[in-house]
Amino acid sequence: MSKNIKVNAAILIIGNEILSGRTQDTNTSTLATWLNSIGVKVGEVRVIPDIENIIIETINLLRKKYNYVFTSGGIGPTHDDITAQSVSKTFGLKYEIHKEAFKILEKYYKKGEFNEGRQKMVWMPKNANLILNPTSGAPGFNVENVFCLPGVPSILKSMLGGLKNKIVGGEPILSHTISLKTVESEIANSLSKVQNENDDVEIGSYPFFHAGKLGVSIVLRSENQTRIDECSSQILKFVNEKKIEIVER
Amino acid sequence: MSKNIKVNAAILIIGNEILSGRTQDTNTSTLATWLNSIGVKVGEVRVIPDIENIIIETINLLRKKYNYVFTSGGIGPTHDDITAQSVSKTFGLKYEIHKEAFKILEKYYKKGEFNEGRQKMVWMPKNANLILNPTSGAPGFNVENVFCLPGVPSILKSMLGGLKNKIVGGEPILSHTISLKTVESEIANSLSKVQNENDDVEIGSYPFFHAGKLGVSIVLRSENQTRIDECSSQILKFVNEKKIEIVER
Repeated sequence: MSKNIKVNAAILIIGNEILSGRTQDTNTSTLATWLNSIGVKVGEVRVIPDIENIIIETINLLRKKYNYVFTSGGIGPTHDDITAQSVSKTFGLKYEIHKEAFKILEKYYKKGEFNEGRQKMVWMPKNANLILNPTSGAPGFNVENVFCLPGVPSILKSMLGGLKNKIVGGEPILSHTISLKTVESEIANSLSKVQNENDDVEIGSYPFFHAGKLGVSIVLRSENQTRIDECSSQILKFVNEKKIEIVER
Repeated sequence: MSKNIKVNAAILIIGNEILSGRTQDTNTSTLATWLNSIGVKVGEVRVIPDIENIIIETINLLRKKYNYVFTSGGIGPTHDDITAQSVSKTFGLKYEIHKEAFKILEKYYKKGEFNEGRQKMVWMPKNANLILNPTSGAPGFNVENVFCLPGVPSILKSMLGGLKNKIVGGEPILSHTISLKTVESEIANSLSKVQNENDDVEIGSYPFFHAGKLGVSIVLRSENQTRIDECSSQILKFVNEKKIEIVER
């Protein structure tokens, strides 16, 4: 895939615990930050319950719409972990013991500890490619462009390094932030003008309240550093004219 | 609406800053926790970019599929805040100055401070119902079953109190958590049996690593406390038999 092709992805968080509010999802921001750094733009995120037909339907839709799909959650040993069997059905593949994964976990656990519960974690779609897990042994896997990762944030994070070679990104998406001691309404019109004149740079405006300080962060995003710099100059020009203070964030 | 009817909702987070990983979304868990407490079950969450046709398409889909839709983000004064105009188009309503909202902000700001940038925040779909904002003045709004809230977490949170009377929930969804000093694989089979025998109670199993302690939280969810208690007894039975320690979380 050539470097100037745009590459996109969807993130699919699978788990009732996010929908009930019990658990605060952090995997979206971990995955999105990492994907951006390797030139993959996240087009959408969905959070869905642990219900087989919803998982199958959603993966089928997303895998056709995006270059990559990353799922998080549902690959552990308990009854509510149904991602692997759902992905098998999605692709019409047999759900079976993955020999390589079996060997990995057989080695990982002490003798006698690789019990029936743990063995559930080596059931995968036939011929799935493994994603190694340096934290807790049990691998994730991918079938075609669908990559299945665990829900526990620290484990998911530790698996991204091993994933890098499997993902072909485009140009990394660069960003530059200018933080100002002002309110959005003060700069809205000027910023709007800069955005209109530079529609190839994505300009976001985000108010912040931090350590008692109120301000606005302007974020410029593009694959092209020169274009970011040009926009940045135009913004700094009106910031100076308006005598707005630039602050650290 | 009778109390035993199931009521559901979708949450729609609108904002490039979440998709880029720059901002960690916390509004999903705030909204989901609150909705659960008033008997509204969250069926799905989506995060989408600040792109008009995607916003329109997604709201149109979700508002037909769920009793309520809650959007977060995109109602501020800058060029990337396009939720209000997108909702106007979704419902085929005029996008215009909302007189009541205008009066509120005219009073809220000191003389001369209700400038053009701020006035953008009173442009809404014609005849939208206001959702009052006790933190920073600018109201949210709803059209039919679509409720539009801001993206700043502290402001969103402060607006939920005023929303309560507009939402008719079902039976509150109750939950009970049992935390154990064990690993999931130790309890997977027994827990699976309890789930199979009690398919009206949603049983989730969530490993945790907290303050150096490793464990599993089992979460039971249902509208019916008696059923939760019955499941809980069945779980405590095998927990005792296996001599697994119950821990505080």
